[in-house]
Amino acid sequence: MIASEDGRQPAAHTSGRISAPGQRPTPRVIIVGAGFGGLEAAKALADAPVEVVVIDEKNHHCFQPLLYQVATAALSPADVAWPIRSILRHQQNARVMLASVTAVEKANRHVHTDRIVLSFDYLVIATGATHFYFGHDEWGRVAPGLKRIEDATHIRRKILLAFERAELANDANLRRQLMTFVVIGGGPTGVEMAGAIAEIARQTLRADFRAIDPAESRIVLVEAGPRILPAFQERLSEYATATLSSMGVQVLTSARVTGVDGSGVQLGNERIESCTCIWAAGVAASPAGRWLDAPCDRSGRVNVLPDLSVPGTPEIFVIGDTAAIVSADGRPVPGIAPAAKQMGRYVGRVIAARVQGRAPPGPFRYRHYGDLATIGRRAAVVKLDHFSLTGFVGWLFWSIAHIYFLIGVRNRLVVAINWLWNYLTFQRGARLIT
Amino acid sequence: MIASEDGRQPAAHTSGRISAPGQRPTPRVIIVGAGFGGLEAAKALADAPVEVVVIDEKNHHCFQPLLYQVATAALSPADVAWPIRSILRHQQNARVMLASVTAVEKANRHVHTDRIVLSFDYLVIATGATHFYFGHDEWGRVAPGLKRIEDATHIRRKILLAFERAELANDANLRRQLMTFVVIGGGPTGVEMAGAIAEIARQTLRADFRAIDPAESRIVLVEAGPRILPAFQERLSEYATATLSSMGVQVLTSARVTGVDGSGVQLGNERIESCTCIWAAGVAASPAGRWLDAPCDRSGRVNVLPDLSVPGTPEIFVIGDTAAIVSADGRPVPGIAPAAKQMGRYVGRVIAARVQGRAPPGPFRYRHYGDLATIGRRAAVVKLDHFSLTGFVGWLFWSIAHIYFLIGVRNRLVVAINWLWNYLTFQRGARLIT
Repeated sequence: MIASEDGRQPAAHTSGRISAPGQRPTPRVIIVGAGFGGLEAAKALADAPVEVVVIDEKNHHCFQPLLYQVATAALSPADVAWPIRSILRHQQNARVMLASVTAVEKANRHVHTDRIVLSFDYLVIATGATHFYFGHDEWGRVAPGLKRIEDATHIRRKILLAFERAELANDANLRRQLMTFVVIGGGPTGVEMAGAIAEIARQTLRADFRAIDPAESRIVLVEAGPRILPAFQERLSEYATATLSSMGVQVLTSARVTGVDGSGVQLGNERIESCTCIWAAGVAASPAGRWLDAPCDRSGRVNVLPDLSVPGTPEIFVIGDTAAIVSADGRPVPGIAPAAKQMGRYVGRVIAARVQGRAPPGPFRYRHYGDLATIGRRAAVVKLDHFSLTGFVGWLFWSIAHIYFLIGVRNRLVVAINWLWNYLTFQRGARLIT
Repeated sequence: MIASEDGRQPAAHTSGRISAPGQRPTPRVIIVGAGFGGLEAAKALADAPVEVVVIDEKNHHCFQPLLYQVATAALSPADVAWPIRSILRHQQNARVMLASVTAVEKANRHVHTDRIVLSFDYLVIATGATHFYFGHDEWGRVAPGLKRIEDATHIRRKILLAFERAELANDANLRRQLMTFVVIGGGPTGVEMAGAIAEIARQTLRADFRAIDPAESRIVLVEAGPRILPAFQERLSEYATATLSSMGVQVLTSARVTGVDGSGVQLGNERIESCTCIWAAGVAASPAGRWLDAPCDRSGRVNVLPDLSVPGTPEIFVIGDTAAIVSADGRPVPGIAPAAKQMGRYVGRVIAARVQGRAPPGPFRYRHYGDLATIGRRAAVVKLDHFSLTGFVGWLFWSIAHIYFLIGVRNRLVVAINWLWNYLTFQRGARLIT
């Protein structure tokens, strides 16, 4: 229904065109993806003499670190998401397009989307990562991962429906299977999911059912490596394991998943009968490498140069979870939000310098501030440069940090109220099956 | 997957059964539908020597009067919905079942659902109403109505996507069609929807687009009768029309819709080209009349006796929007939330009296407290027994009344913050396309 056409005229109310070909009044920077990296890149170009076009498949930026709270009914989708347009509305050199990128033509500098074709002078790919099932894509149908708002509401529905079905089940085996939850992957997301499901079962739903006792649920956290939270010190992993156990979560380490289907999870010879399995293990980069025909690592991340550009095409950059890069200090850059933000700001500075004929900044240098993971009510692990925190103090630090990094006053207030209410009443406000 | 079996044993953790046949320890009251009426009926039976079973297709009670605010991105679904289990969790004689009723056997007193078959001693049907397209069910595919959470998020998606598509459209006619919104039906819901869409277009989105100016949107409210808000005094209708006009809503009265399709609305000889049409006109009762094979009026509402029971089956009651009843004072009872609540409480009292062998209360008498409709920012109409309000005072009254009637402290706080934030910034926090 929408005509696709490239043009290069200044944005006008009567035309979908941007600017006319040939004229080139200002260089155009296309940013694909409005996650942490893409948004920072756009903002870093606010004062540069460029036209910024942000393309995303979704109309909202999603605060992924709190997505597990949507999946476990503590927050609403709108509490952790924000319209991209709204974030950039006062940046006059930026415009936002809701479209899906389908291809990139490197030679003549064109981006193809499902709605429009656009030419660019600079291109920033910030499309993030998705779940990776180690070659078993069929597991994805029964074991959803957690990357988008839709994933979170899908998982919420699965968890809440399992209890509803158990309440009406007459068969004891079926009831046990419905009340068994398996989380695969012992990184921060897996730990947070397992802890939150335990809280739902043992606290939130405690008084709500008549035929079942939700506190009898079995929650299993499966990790292939020798310990959970491998990015943290061993002491913190042990603390997390002990806390999860006291919350009633069974932690299985050195346990490799060999099969997942709608009725259970296979761990070598052992099988766990479960109707609800959640994937927090493998991650693969978005298909930017394929679009660019660029060299990638085995997770599909593009091996970028020290200025985050793609080898051979200095006007194309890849940032965030889609980029594989070793920081100037020799450490590989991790796939976390602060890293993506730093890359976004850096690329914005590189492009601004090049457009204005200034010397570009030196190679990208990643600054690691720390690692955080919450386990449950009054329990989190925090590893910073010079100290680490656990327990209530860690949990308070985690809560304040996350509220601070949320976008917008409204979201901060509403999330704070929801958490306070949850803390005082053990209830979760977003228990909707839709 | 779920075995269906009727039984009558006391609720047990090891069994989905409720109570064993023959034994009949306590009479069982089945309530179908956990809207305003059903919930009040359940609560009114809290102290009666009965077993209450509430059956609903959804796991949540929905506060329908604020659903239009979800459809227009001001509130999140969880702000106007509440888990039914959570509402009734401290009522020990009540249990909740997530299931769809498929049939009622009057003779041997059984309710059939998609998951289980249950016998009853008393049955309360409180299944509400749905949209009615005056025999043109095909209009429903393109002109959604507003009854459930899913309707609201669907309409929100349609409205927000229309602007996104207009931003990328090259054709002026298509752009105009995308930026034209038609609301059919000039009752409170239609007035509220039209006013809210006007606010989104002229205020919320004003600075967010580059190729279109959302303020140029056309919003049309279509009413078949001679004036909008027919339940209010003529003076209040005139005030509402004038306020809507000043907000940029075109109000068409005595305009009968003769066709609706994906690209426009036909009003006799006139056609309005529009990609977004919202239905707030006809309402029909749920199929309870068919289940019961009972006499109905032409909207499908069951003609109940003065004690709200179905003629010929004194143990079956129909309440709320599914019932057609003239109040003991001679006025027909309207299809609004306070009426449903009063009927629910009344039926609870009737059943409790009968079970305990006491004399039942006299015929149902409806007490009308007033009519409310909000138009937009600082404008509402309120008609109470002895006075009426408009403008800012009416709007404040409307806001406070709706927050008061919301369930739960969290929802009240979160809705109040969202409204305050919306009032101060003109922004809407739930602008998600999912």
